[in-house]
Amino acid sequence: MTTFDAATDAIIAVGARLDRAGLVPATAGNYSVRLPDGTFAVTVSGGHKGRLAPEQVMRVDADGVSLDGKRPSAETLLHCLIYAIDDSAGGVLHTHSVPGVVLSRALRDVREIVFDGYELLKIFPGIDTHAARVALPLVENDQDMMAMAAVLRPLLTAQHPIVPAFYIRGHGLYAWGPTIAEAEHVTEAVEYLLACEWETLKLERSRA
Amino acid sequence: MTTFDAATDAIIAVGARLDRAGLVPATAGNYSVRLPDGTFAVTVSGGHKGRLAPEQVMRVDADGVSLDGKRPSAETLLHCLIYAIDDSAGGVLHTHSVPGVVLSRALRDVREIVFDGYELLKIFPGIDTHAARVALPLVENDQDMMAMAAVLRPLLTAQHPIVPAFYIRGHGLYAWGPTIAEAEHVTEAVEYLLACEWETLKLERSRA
Amino acid sequence: MTTFDAATDAIIAVGARLDRAGLVPATAGNYSVRLPDGTFAVTVSGGHKGRLAPEQVMRVDADGVSLDGKRPSAETLLHCLIYAIDDSAGGVLHTHSVPGVVLSRALRDVREIVFDGYELLKIFPGIDTHAARVALPLVENDQDMMAMAAVLRPLLTAQHPIVPAFYIRGHGLYAWGPTIAEAEHVTEAVEYLLACEWETLKLERSRA
Amino acid sequence: MTTFDAATDAIIAVGARLDRAGLVPATAGNYSVRLPDGTFAVTVSGGHKGRLAPEQVMRVDADGVSLDGKRPSAETLLHCLIYAIDDSAGGVLHTHSVPGVVLSRALRDVREIVFDGYELLKIFPGIDTHAARVALPLVENDQDMMAMAAVLRPLLTAQHPIVPAFYIRGHGLYAWGPTIAEAEHVTEAVEYLLACEWETLKLERSRA
Repeated sequence: MTTFDAATDAIIAVGARLDRAGLVPATAGNYSVRLPDGTFAVTVSGGHKGRLAPEQVMRVDADGVSLDGKRPSAETLLHCLIYAIDDSAGGVLHTHSVPGVVLSRALRDVREIVFDGYELLKIFPGIDTHAARVALPLVENDQDMMAMAAVLRPLLTAQHPIVPAFYIRGHGLYAWGPTIAEAEHVTEAVEYLLACEWETLKLERSRA
Repeated sequence: MTTFDAATDAIIAVGARLDRAGLVPATAGNYSVRLPDGTFAVTVSGGHKGRLAPEQVMRVDADGVSLDGKRPSAETLLHCLIYAIDDSAGGVLHTHSVPGVVLSRALRDVREIVFDGYELLKIFPGIDTHAARVALPLVENDQDMMAMAAVLRPLLTAQHPIVPAFYIRGHGLYAWGPTIAEAEHVTEAVEYLLACEWETLKLERSRA
Repeated sequence: MTTFDAATDAIIAVGARLDRAGLVPATAGNYSVRLPDGTFAVTVSGGHKGRLAPEQVMRVDADGVSLDGKRPSAETLLHCLIYAIDDSAGGVLHTHSVPGVVLSRALRDVREIVFDGYELLKIFPGIDTHAARVALPLVENDQDMMAMAAVLRPLLTAQHPIVPAFYIRGHGLYAWGPTIAEAEHVTEAVEYLLACEWETLKLERSRA
Repeated sequence: MTTFDAATDAIIAVGARLDRAGLVPATAGNYSVRLPDGTFAVTVSGGHKGRLAPEQVMRVDADGVSLDGKRPSAETLLHCLIYAIDDSAGGVLHTHSVPGVVLSRALRDVREIVFDGYELLKIFPGIDTHAARVALPLVENDQDMMAMAAVLRPLLTAQHPIVPAFYIRGHGLYAWGPTIAEAEHVTEAVEYLLACEWETLKLERSRA
């Protein structure tokens, strides 16, 4: 059973690691953990996510409403959406890498980023071979989280099994897993695959 | 209230972090904090800015004149200019990244670097959506700080609101904020945006 | 004489270093050490290889069969193959870098990656000059380790001397040496050479 | 006055920093410090230069002959050459970066790498403006250190003032300064400039 304090410690640790990997510049990123009572531990709005203090983790209910008087970021609603749609989600991470953002912008009218034939695809649920193809949903950025949730909900629920990650164009990655540790594995794998796709796109375009 | 000693500690810590991110090679970079009495704590001339000792932070007045016998770097005058023009500035950072410098040199006759549509634009004052456009001033390098200040002053004062960052071609970035922590957020965000623009330029040129 | 406990400590340390270098994203990678009695210390299946706990190192026999009830990863068989073929192998490391993977995928029908004229070639056995040419075997990925071993065995035994590294397309690098420290040197050298080749390929293609 | 023990500590510290910056893969690199009696502290042959133990630093005379029974690397002769030619040299560092090596190989028939207009040029002796041009000598690699010294000696002595760095094609950088700390500044500055030139070359070639 994960307590709020244990979730806070895990969130601080994962934040420091994602920062060292260059994935959360400035005040970018937010992280959450599902607690046994159906509430969530989530990072507060603002501040650097690479050097969090315990007071920068707060508790919200399933609708993202603050339970302790602290102010959640608007994007908390996307965390709540993920937990509502995917029962297996125990931790959610959001990162902003350079390769992911430039790739998502370069693929202008594209609605998914396809990863094909990589060994690291085995990080995704139900994938046990590199001879596979995973489509990462790529949605438009929107400051209205209800609007973004309205786009994401049908898109995610239509997946069997759910791909535990999606990308917001020009913004960043959401990735999750049964625990925050597994969410970090998905995050690292997808950021790695995005970097591979960006490098490959540069090579291929130079030949076109 | 920030004391000189607290400012020194904050400067040393931010220097170590900027060094780990590869933003202050050799003796590049300088950092300052505005103190409550209108004087400034600023790094001394020379030395590596990634592993500062307390004695490498000095105090200057609003004109950049040494108040403790230590020697400020010539660029201290740019810090003073920023504090004079932007009342909200409480900390100023100067960094030299590879992507920023090569981008500023490749954009030969260009006088601003435009960031358009990125989520991270929200780090700038008055910007609350990615659906925005921020123009980072790009000025020519000059060893005469009075000359550079004469170019920058009208350029910065004409902005409403002031964009708390500018780039010196082939040299590096100046970025600031109400506190040194917020200056670091702006620095990280702009260096990230510069890296995105450099990666995108390489892709686009390969198609041209 | 290397004890199991000493091998465990060495494996944990090398894992942390390879993680800091960005070579083992998500749950990628596995590491082993040959013990004096002919058994092997090897990382268990799953988990992040950059922050291993002692209980994530297990003992297997020469056929990769668990000797302590823990579950080895399927790839343990490739470690066993290497130890069986190369008597000098004392430690084996497996990494997944972005440049290596994208290079291995871009070189579509190619069966070796040739490194020619680099000073760092001197890391390979029997090479004492940069004026040399080393061909790194590049094999297809396969989830059937027996099938992959059947491809690798004749390929490695035909080499005189054995090149202590090979690459699995779209997957990653295997590298080894008389000790785990020397295996790490080969790993770093080959990952460096792969990065050099990837950078060079991008430059050359842009001219084609 | 630098003692052998202080030189050893400084060499170990600089090695760890250069390793964190990715500049000394595998067993690459070597470092030295001039001692007051005209002998030199220098890293021994072999081993990783990012995690040196005190016993991996030895003492040689002005001809590179071991004074303590330990075995110097062949390249110690290049350190001795530098100290013999440049009286101001107090510390010498040798690194191997990816951008430097691929640039030196891409510039096939070129005998110098020109850095023009960068603020960081001010790290070089006698340069006090970015409006300058520094030519880094680029020599062919050779396993015969006497032959390489014979090429370098006239080339370095003809410089006024001496540019405290040169590049060996496909191999790496030598850089020096009055102290090992200043040698590290030159190393960081030149590796940064090499990275800038490599990035710029990729952009320019894609247009050619």
